[in-house]
Amino acid sequence: MFNLYRWGRSVLQKNITAHDIANHLGISQSTVSRVFTPGASVSEKTRRRVLEAAELLGYRPNMLARSLITKKTNMIGLVMGDIDNPFYPEVLSKLSGELKKRQYNVLLLNAENDDVPSESLIQFLGYNIEGLVVTDVLLSSSIVSQFAELDIPIVLFNRYTTNAHCHTVCCDNMDGGRRIGEYLLRTGHRRLAFISGDPNTSTSQDREKGFRDALLNEGLHFMTESGGYTYEMAYEAANRLFLRADRPDAIFCANDIMAIGAIDAAKKLGVRVPEDVSIIGFDNIKPAAWAGYDLTTWTQPVDRMIEATIDLLLEKIEEPDRRSQADYQWIKGHLVERNTVMTRNKND
Amino acid sequence: MFNLYRWGRSVLQKNITAHDIANHLGISQSTVSRVFTPGASVSEKTRRRVLEAAELLGYRPNMLARSLITKKTNMIGLVMGDIDNPFYPEVLSKLSGELKKRQYNVLLLNAENDDVPSESLIQFLGYNIEGLVVTDVLLSSSIVSQFAELDIPIVLFNRYTTNAHCHTVCCDNMDGGRRIGEYLLRTGHRRLAFISGDPNTSTSQDREKGFRDALLNEGLHFMTESGGYTYEMAYEAANRLFLRADRPDAIFCANDIMAIGAIDAAKKLGVRVPEDVSIIGFDNIKPAAWAGYDLTTWTQPVDRMIEATIDLLLEKIEEPDRRSQADYQWIKGHLVERNTVMTRNKND
Repeated sequence: MFNLYRWGRSVLQKNITAHDIANHLGISQSTVSRVFTPGASVSEKTRRRVLEAAELLGYRPNMLARSLITKKTNMIGLVMGDIDNPFYPEVLSKLSGELKKRQYNVLLLNAENDDVPSESLIQFLGYNIEGLVVTDVLLSSSIVSQFAELDIPIVLFNRYTTNAHCHTVCCDNMDGGRRIGEYLLRTGHRRLAFISGDPNTSTSQDREKGFRDALLNEGLHFMTESGGYTYEMAYEAANRLFLRADRPDAIFCANDIMAIGAIDAAKKLGVRVPEDVSIIGFDNIKPAAWAGYDLTTWTQPVDRMIEATIDLLLEKIEEPDRRSQADYQWIKGHLVERNTVMTRNKND
Repeated sequence: MFNLYRWGRSVLQKNITAHDIANHLGISQSTVSRVFTPGASVSEKTRRRVLEAAELLGYRPNMLARSLITKKTNMIGLVMGDIDNPFYPEVLSKLSGELKKRQYNVLLLNAENDDVPSESLIQFLGYNIEGLVVTDVLLSSSIVSQFAELDIPIVLFNRYTTNAHCHTVCCDNMDGGRRIGEYLLRTGHRRLAFISGDPNTSTSQDREKGFRDALLNEGLHFMTESGGYTYEMAYEAANRLFLRADRPDAIFCANDIMAIGAIDAAKKLGVRVPEDVSIIGFDNIKPAAWAGYDLTTWTQPVDRMIEATIDLLLEKIEEPDRRSQADYQWIKGHLVERNTVMTRNKND
């Protein structure tokens, strides 16, 4: 009996090619190639047959050699910072999953604290990545220029800059902040506070700006504390707010991790949520739904943001003449009412 | 005046090489190369000068063309599954950070639900990755064989198999389970329960096995419920335990996310933790330390596990004659006492 496995091993030395797979299955070589080519169409049945043969015979498309000719590496660079906030692992997981579906692979750069080393990004260029997605870190303008010179598109996810070489997909953070402000006013709150995230980020700035706009419409000001987008800093910030003589009746935290810190601080001091103080977050991460918090918050429409990011990036990759035009997309989120905000009598 | 920036742009068309950078700075070409070569030594001052010139002139080492000659791509594949458990984003972040320090880049494959598509791994081979790290997913044995044929080492992180081609770095889960059992017995608990993770994983199996061993030493059995490593399933599992006539006086959950679910379920039912029931987790993720939970748990020594993983992987990459010997490393964790376990009178 012909032993396919043995045969596979014995011919392995001579490097299996798409041609060998095609011969073996009695199909054309271009069909085999299509299975490993991004976006190419091939029936599910054929795909499975080719993959089984490829696995058995040890075939692998030489992406690197191929890329030197076609300039396609199907690699996308992803630069990401804060992994402690569960929002970003969720983004990472979904983004890499969706890119995979479109046959792109993710070369990851995890930047500790905002600081992206230049040589890491220059190395990325050396891998001929076809595009770059950047989440919660800042790029130097000289690096951005270098990507632009090489005609490699950059999409910022939930960040923006005035640099014309960067495209942007953002949650409409200003709209979110404004509508949270309006919601807290509508539910009868009058002594409001804001716990900010990292003050250098557009996400925190825009959420605060929208919130301020809503309050100014009613002639109201608000207290602010800095929470640095971390549980620990927000816990301390909330403590300071709770100890004020004019304790707030509602606190808007610029993300959920901070809102959770504020809730825990309230519990410790015997301040009841929402009876004594309403607390609202931003992101709608999984722990926000945990029964221990049941946090009213603002959903960032992650799925739509990721779809838009990939559409934009691939459009720029595949249609080079559209690269020079900077594109911005703002995607609106929505309120998720749980149990940390209550309606108050306006005459309290 | 000589305009370096202009010059940089004008020569960009002809592709900047290490030679150009070297000429410009009046240093040797090999010094320039060393800045972009893994592990090569170069002074911090020179490194900075080269990087500045590289950024300005738009130099990038062609990693791909170079890799076809040297067979070094400095890419490590990382296959990871469950990103909802904060333990794994932490692993991802630290692992990619440490690899970066050793000049390796991470090509990421995020597997939804255990199921790793073959073509994704075959593509990884096509990128000439030099090694593979796999966390919480299973590889088919035919894929493992293919990596072995190509002499590409695989290190499993916190998983193991009898497949001789896979090396392993694991938290000593059995030891952890046993010592948790001993701790709960020592603190006077007699009606014990275990909420398991995914029953197909060695992590959950080993934690349970160690726990069982400790209890059998005292002739005790324990109740079990399945929690699937998720908050939601553990919440339901804990509910079932709390409604039993012989309600447990202590629950060991196979990870922290499940212990948090069990605590929330207890709160909802008015079962006091730890007065009515002690709860202990495993992992020591950040939320375990949040004031709202203050969870007693078991630390997985992530930093040491990651260091061992990288040491093992790079040893196998750099010393090919050591690849054939399967290596296993078991690293012990330790107890973190917080406030969800209390000492009981043994005569209760």
